[in-house]
Amino acid sequence: MPQLIPIVDPADPRVEPYRDIRERDLVGRRGLFVAEGVVVLEKLVESATHRATSLLIADKRAAALAPLLARLPADTPVYLAAPGVLDAVAGFPLHRGVLAIGQRGADLPAEALLGGTIPPRDVLLLSGIANHDNMGGIFRNAAAFGVGAVLLDADCCDPLYRKAIRVSVGAALTVPFARLGRDEDALALLAHHGFEAVALSPAGTTALPAWRPALRSAVLLGAEGPGLAPALMARSRTLRIAMAAGFDSLNVATTSGIVLHHLATARGGGA
Amino acid sequence: MPQLIPIVDPADPRVEPYRDIRERDLVGRRGLFVAEGVVVLEKLVESATHRATSLLIADKRAAALAPLLARLPADTPVYLAAPGVLDAVAGFPLHRGVLAIGQRGADLPAEALLGGTIPPRDVLLLSGIANHDNMGGIFRNAAAFGVGAVLLDADCCDPLYRKAIRVSVGAALTVPFARLGRDEDALALLAHHGFEAVALSPAGTTALPAWRPALRSAVLLGAEGPGLAPALMARSRTLRIAMAAGFDSLNVATTSGIVLHHLATARGGGA
Repeated sequence: MPQLIPIVDPADPRVEPYRDIRERDLVGRRGLFVAEGVVVLEKLVESATHRATSLLIADKRAAALAPLLARLPADTPVYLAAPGVLDAVAGFPLHRGVLAIGQRGADLPAEALLGGTIPPRDVLLLSGIANHDNMGGIFRNAAAFGVGAVLLDADCCDPLYRKAIRVSVGAALTVPFARLGRDEDALALLAHHGFEAVALSPAGTTALPAWRPALRSAVLLGAEGPGLAPALMARSRTLRIAMAAGFDSLNVATTSGIVLHHLATARGGGA
Repeated sequence: MPQLIPIVDPADPRVEPYRDIRERDLVGRRGLFVAEGVVVLEKLVESATHRATSLLIADKRAAALAPLLARLPADTPVYLAAPGVLDAVAGFPLHRGVLAIGQRGADLPAEALLGGTIPPRDVLLLSGIANHDNMGGIFRNAAAFGVGAVLLDADCCDPLYRKAIRVSVGAALTVPFARLGRDEDALALLAHHGFEAVALSPAGTTALPAWRPALRSAVLLGAEGPGLAPALMARSRTLRIAMAAGFDSLNVATTSGIVLHHLATARGGGA
């Protein structure tokens, strides 16, 4: 069981990583990220890749969280604070009362994810997804429908940004992902590993319900507005989701849910 | 063409309704709402139900917006301000540079929506959707897939809250909706008008892909977490969306997209 350490002074240097977390993006600076809420903390505890470096929780929640805390390494500091102290440290009212600072695991190259000993059957390739809500929503759907890995191009935001983790309900900590270099040829890599690339676009040639997925599929999603680059579309099978007249775009996270549900159903998991 | 009125002083009383809009919820107080961005403004101009009482836009955008402004009634004031003045009025950096105050139309009773001269084929019944992002996302999907009307129970938030309108990309202004009274029997009303009620739940008895919709369908969606009330579930056909092991819930807006895509496909609109 980790040690429980009371914090009474919001200025206590031990909780410095938690200070004003809304204003700061720890990711990239020191390989750290912020996890909020019990469900996300559970995913962090379960993660084989990332680990909690410390926790900061409302003291009144400690008893109820004891079983989860017991699963942390014994040397993980767990700071306890009264709600007022907690809010003063974090810089905003922290209704959930549970924060953790995570240390991100080593970045995996896409090659390792696609060509591992147990290669995933289906993956996502995200291009230019720069909105943290959308990134989190896509990871949540990826976990819900059993996607094996997510590839990110150089223009995607970080799935381990605080808000993306929260919106993903922790899935950003459990679904493996890899970032591609700006000049990396994602489609060649996918083809090399036997994935059929299917690109979602309002201008797609095949309606989604008619799609019969290949043995291994890579679903390409681009940002709303610009959409996927024509060069990517030209080298992929293109799918469209039919919409009512006068309406031409869905939210990209919603799109991922619709496509992944179709894929899961085709894989026999829709029953 | 409406009159263009320069505003140079952020304290000008004519732009009082735009002051600190992030902190205020105009809805309910005076039947007003805030519309942000060009696409939402277009929906407001097109709306047969709601109308713009005034606009506040960045002066540099006036020329490009002229065709849209020309569609407003001639007595609609259009206030023009330099970006700095605009931000000072609104209380935050207003990247889009386009705001409007809308006057909401008279509330329609659900009876009028369901039993009108051209009754909708499919509707949504929302229960306890209190999150504005989710409400906006559901309306966006309702418009994308041609849902005829949305019924809201007494525990739903207002679709005309600023953020809900924005996330809906204006669909909250175009898809008709009605709020039910707390003691109103929504399912009896739906049955009276020939709708089959189908309730989405992780515990549903029929997998979504196996659902063949009746002539007229009402899709019931509840908040994540609590879900739909057992009393509603017991009186409805229940559907589930199959998920990967260990994952038991999707975002409710994503759920609406998956179900409405299935419904649109079954209606022959998925091609």
